[in-house]
Amino acid sequence: MTTSFDRLWADLEPVGRHAATGGYRRFAWTRTDHDLREWFAAECAARGLDLVEDRAGNQWGWWGDPDRTPGVVIGSHLDSVPDGGAFDGPLGVVSALATVDALREAGLEPDVPIGVVNFVDEEGARFGIACAGSRIITGALDADRARALTDADGVSMAEAWRSAGRDPDTLGRDDETVRRIGRFVELHVEQGKALALAPDGGDDLTDPARAVAIGTDIWPHGRWRIDIPGEANHAGTTRLEDRKDAMLGLAEVVQAARSYAVRLGCVATVGKVDVVPGGVNAIPSHVTAWLDARGRSEHVVHAVVDAVSAEAQRLGASTTEESWTPTTTFDTRLVERLHGILPDAPLLGTGAGHDAGILATHGVATAMLFVRNPTGVSHSPSESATTEDCHHGVTALTAVVTELCTGKDPESMSVAR
Amino acid sequence: MTTSFDRLWADLEPVGRHAATGGYRRFAWTRTDHDLREWFAAECAARGLDLVEDRAGNQWGWWGDPDRTPGVVIGSHLDSVPDGGAFDGPLGVVSALATVDALREAGLEPDVPIGVVNFVDEEGARFGIACAGSRIITGALDADRARALTDADGVSMAEAWRSAGRDPDTLGRDDETVRRIGRFVELHVEQGKALALAPDGGDDLTDPARAVAIGTDIWPHGRWRIDIPGEANHAGTTRLEDRKDAMLGLAEVVQAARSYAVRLGCVATVGKVDVVPGGVNAIPSHVTAWLDARGRSEHVVHAVVDAVSAEAQRLGASTTEESWTPTTTFDTRLVERLHGILPDAPLLGTGAGHDAGILATHGVATAMLFVRNPTGVSHSPSESATTEDCHHGVTALTAVVTELCTGKDPESMSVAR
Repeated sequence: MTTSFDRLWADLEPVGRHAATGGYRRFAWTRTDHDLREWFAAECAARGLDLVEDRAGNQWGWWGDPDRTPGVVIGSHLDSVPDGGAFDGPLGVVSALATVDALREAGLEPDVPIGVVNFVDEEGARFGIACAGSRIITGALDADRARALTDADGVSMAEAWRSAGRDPDTLGRDDETVRRIGRFVELHVEQGKALALAPDGGDDLTDPARAVAIGTDIWPHGRWRIDIPGEANHAGTTRLEDRKDAMLGLAEVVQAARSYAVRLGCVATVGKVDVVPGGVNAIPSHVTAWLDARGRSEHVVHAVVDAVSAEAQRLGASTTEESWTPTTTFDTRLVERLHGILPDAPLLGTGAGHDAGILATHGVATAMLFVRNPTGVSHSPSESATTEDCHHGVTALTAVVTELCTGKDPESMSVAR
Repeated sequence: MTTSFDRLWADLEPVGRHAATGGYRRFAWTRTDHDLREWFAAECAARGLDLVEDRAGNQWGWWGDPDRTPGVVIGSHLDSVPDGGAFDGPLGVVSALATVDALREAGLEPDVPIGVVNFVDEEGARFGIACAGSRIITGALDADRARALTDADGVSMAEAWRSAGRDPDTLGRDDETVRRIGRFVELHVEQGKALALAPDGGDDLTDPARAVAIGTDIWPHGRWRIDIPGEANHAGTTRLEDRKDAMLGLAEVVQAARSYAVRLGCVATVGKVDVVPGGVNAIPSHVTAWLDARGRSEHVVHAVVDAVSAEAQRLGASTTEESWTPTTTFDTRLVERLHGILPDAPLLGTGAGHDAGILATHGVATAMLFVRNPTGVSHSPSESATTEDCHHGVTALTAVVTELCTGKDPESMSVAR
């Protein structure tokens, strides 16, 4: 199994890596994406898995017939954010393929089909909508809206499909594909340091009991646009007391977001701003700031946003909700079953969205596994996982699939937990 | 004279005004600029002025022969910043033409030539370099560098010249043109509220003694780039205590700039920022902020920038000087002479750059007149001047030119001060 994982990982590692930054640029329906899809198809073929592409372009490799009985699906995505890391997405796909190898090696004869999935366009880096592949097949993203989304060069998703040799008219909701998913377990690198931090607060990167966690829920999260007014004027000739400088408002909003997040215990970020007119010698007449806020409870996130919004209002600024996703709780019975199979694994909520969350919201029995990330960094070349922990991830996933596909006690299998 | 000013102003007012914003978009070497230049040429022709275009494209209308003896030049520019106001530039050109009319009406026979100038590309809105017209002819802006400057669409100044039917190879330093300028008096709308504010601090928009001021100097000013480092990470999953968020650094830099400027009595502005990667769900890994600082003394401006820079350094940020212009003092003898002609006019320094400043630095005897601006606003559609004050401006300029061209006491002329 370890040989299988290491070889798969080594094959995938150079694809789409930018020489200058060391970061990955794997965007949906590009040449790099095509190479990744070909790689996935070849690995499915090498394992005798039946490759199916659904109406969003997600790739499924089936061991057994999912139209007879819904299967156990494992996998993740291969695309990245701009200059992202190697693990976010690919770790789940490679671990799923290595799990199939481990199951074969152990002589497993599954009672239900096993599927390996590569979701397309999870990061939304090109067309702006995260989890586009799972949203399209569940109907959460309307087909017409999806086709009309454009990238930074003005290329629509429909045009990108055509350039990739696909017919965008076939894009759309795909109930048949969703019906095939009996249960979905997405393995993913952890995007924080919860596993890497020992209870005493120091780093602990060796405790095998903390190599893998079970995901319980995706935190409620949302995005708010804050419009801060100012008054256009000359930076050289306008007295300070005569100014209405929207940039000073931005400074207050940024600090308010941080201080309320600290006080109430959630996370809040201003990662994008737009300054008008944006000239070095022009007092900003308008600044737009986008606030991203997430936390363990919906109540706390709303309390932070309300407090920031009140501060903003004091400055004459208005706050508009652009998106809001309530808590996504993974399937309780499935999470409990995973906890039975992996009794040492900590239980962990996450602040990031995933295809697993989209499927869970749609009513599919879904759960996640997280692999320890020593740096805690995500969406950056510094995100990481040790080879040893990756192997622990495959072992855990193998135990889970064995149990879910046979009802057998995973302790009796040759794969150790 | 008043009829002449009002008609000229009314003709010019609609050119390049954007219907939606009410602001002006008069950018160098565009179709709108062409229309403005045609208008200027026609008004010179109507007055029998000899039109000359120099090697930067500045337009000069001469009454008399400046090659015999250097002349007294009045005028300003016709271009604007994006969505600028009606007065910044055009007030000086229109007042100069109306002054010629007033001098003619008064039967003046000047001993030295009188020139009316329309400087090209003063705002630098298209190619990024302010006062390009005066910089090119004085050699302060190298011809090759000017030709290679590009606008936001990637069009070079050389290409823009060609599109405007001009030969960019002829662009360059023009000593002959500069030699013709004996003295230059640029009339300009005030870009602050010094004239509009009575000594008690309230608005006074009617005192005729405060309708026009004499410019004494252009404040020292500069531009600094502040690079604030952070660490790219996921906005949903990274604990606040594990973050290095460059946006928080920006907030501190913005507030430091304002607070040191207040404390030391100058102006400081952050009008432009660049956030990397700039995603709503990404913690900023780098923010670049541009600081514009100006004030009455070089010492004070440097003290503010040093203090902001020290704060920035505490955050791990570096500060780089991008430009620095020391105090530009207008010609002392000319300023004194103007003060003799207009004894009631206040003396005023300014925080804005002007073609007059470029010529003064080059050694041309130069001064400025400022017309009261009730709003104090500049580079915005809200900048203003009352018709009555505009007429006061023409009267003052007429008195000045009469005196400088004849040595006669302006009191004896028919134009009242």
